[in-house]
Amino acid sequence: MNIETLFYLSDLFGVAVFAVTGALMAGRNAMDLFGVLVIALVTALGGGTLRDLILDNHPVSWIGNELYLVVASVGALGTVLWARFIKPLPEKALLIADAFGLAVFTVIGTEVALRDEVPVSTAVIMGVMTGVAGGVLRDVLCNQIPLIFQKEVYATACIAGSLVYMGLLQLGSGHWAATGVAMLVVLATRIAAIYWGLALPRFHLMDRKKHRG
Amino acid sequence: MNIETLFYLSDLFGVAVFAVTGALMAGRNAMDLFGVLVIALVTALGGGTLRDLILDNHPVSWIGNELYLVVASVGALGTVLWARFIKPLPEKALLIADAFGLAVFTVIGTEVALRDEVPVSTAVIMGVMTGVAGGVLRDVLCNQIPLIFQKEVYATACIAGSLVYMGLLQLGSGHWAATGVAMLVVLATRIAAIYWGLALPRFHLMDRKKHRG
Amino acid sequence: MNIETLFYLSDLFGVAVFAVTGALMAGRNAMDLFGVLVIALVTALGGGTLRDLILDNHPVSWIGNELYLVVASVGALGTVLWARFIKPLPEKALLIADAFGLAVFTVIGTEVALRDEVPVSTAVIMGVMTGVAGGVLRDVLCNQIPLIFQKEVYATACIAGSLVYMGLLQLGSGHWAATGVAMLVVLATRIAAIYWGLALPRFHLMDRKKHRG
Repeated sequence: MNIETLFYLSDLFGVAVFAVTGALMAGRNAMDLFGVLVIALVTALGGGTLRDLILDNHPVSWIGNELYLVVASVGALGTVLWARFIKPLPEKALLIADAFGLAVFTVIGTEVALRDEVPVSTAVIMGVMTGVAGGVLRDVLCNQIPLIFQKEVYATACIAGSLVYMGLLQLGSGHWAATGVAMLVVLATRIAAIYWGLALPRFHLMDRKKHRG
Repeated sequence: MNIETLFYLSDLFGVAVFAVTGALMAGRNAMDLFGVLVIALVTALGGGTLRDLILDNHPVSWIGNELYLVVASVGALGTVLWARFIKPLPEKALLIADAFGLAVFTVIGTEVALRDEVPVSTAVIMGVMTGVAGGVLRDVLCNQIPLIFQKEVYATACIAGSLVYMGLLQLGSGHWAATGVAMLVVLATRIAAIYWGLALPRFHLMDRKKHRG
Repeated sequence: MNIETLFYLSDLFGVAVFAVTGALMAGRNAMDLFGVLVIALVTALGGGTLRDLILDNHPVSWIGNELYLVVASVGALGTVLWARFIKPLPEKALLIADAFGLAVFTVIGTEVALRDEVPVSTAVIMGVMTGVAGGVLRDVLCNQIPLIFQKEVYATACIAGSLVYMGLLQLGSGHWAATGVAMLVVLATRIAAIYWGLALPRFHLMDRKKHRG
């Protein structure tokens, strides 16, 4: 399997697991089948679409390649069928699937940006954006506080993964090893954060005498 | 009237009715005149803009053709004047105008995608996206639960309309007939859903012992 | 200093002050350091990115020029350090910084649109969009009612600034004078609105017997 195939399959895997998280979040809000499908597609394809628009990479992945839509739809429908006819999924399922999607998309976003020969800081931002944008859209549309802004370490995991990926490539590592290690970094950070409630210090930056809104 | 004129006039009609829904929703939240105008423009032009960005169709419709902005503004101001000096509009007015916009934009979005020779599933998604994105932006900006995620049939109406449009073209129907029938399908489904409260089954996919957020 | 340098430095200034507002709003919601950074970057770069995507101006400003990311990050980190180790910033700091960013970005958005030779009404819209989009994204992500939709004059200030800028250029004014006067118009209008609570009349456009949602 060459490196292109690795990224293509990883991308489809990320699409599938983010579709699962979208379906779960939509189901939490008691949406109907097509509402579930819409949220799943937005979650699965939102991050990559935003990245491709900003980098002017056309056609966007899922335009002209039906497999992306098929994989996302299968992920969403599979989740609905499993949860309905086998058993409801535990709360943690959403967080774990989200961590897998985050790991995959952060690495892919960084790699795509590097191919456009952008500066390092821009590549980190594109990695983080590809990783988190779909989930942020999912949470905003479902009127939840986005996971990224909740108390556990989140953006930090993406930034670490993106930097590790570029660092390893720079040190002469192959794409396979760099991809694997960087994904493990994101995944391990997020899962540790979920289970042990890891959090960075938080800031209150304003006098709060009068709270607007 | 040729087929291009049909789509152009339909597009302007969709812009006008979505601007009306934007103005009504902004007025419900007691915004001032320019707030109303901003929401009306986002609602009227958001779906088509997103579609054109993703398909890399430039210039975007309202860049370089002032008529789109004029029609949307007239729709918004007309709504404000009517509701203020003649009589307030009933709650259902927003839902009915939204159904008309949905019908028009679903067909136009599907047609524009087909011209880019995308696969059928992509064309359906582009039709749904063109139809619903403006309204979703409107509802998110006004801090309402988006209509698409409420209990009545909504995305389903768009998917049906998009499939009927492509099916009729495939069967050799002319663009006029296909456009008319597909729009009727969307409109009839939505209006039936509004009046009779039609809804698909809903899903609760997670154990709810501990509800986050 | 030539005119390009004027716009480039103004752009960086706008990025810095909007990053400050993003950091303050994120801090109000008690986010951690990277959450603060994400919100600051979205606020600082969101409006210009949306403008460049819609006008098909590539590469987007911050792709390929790291200075934008550096300036936004320094603005955000400086805010965190100041508020944490010197003293918390008063509520008004956010509104005043937002007014400065609004003034700069409205003029720059209008100017960029004019260079694409769009009609006057489109240039106004692009000016307003560049000015307000970053702040709207900030407020939506932080689950606040966007400043633009609160009771004080806001979009009106942008529209006035954009029109004054184009009017002065049309009357033969140089870019320096037009930029300065238009920015003052936006800034003065917003600051007057904040201190004296200036507001336009508001509209209730619907019968409210039954309130949905």
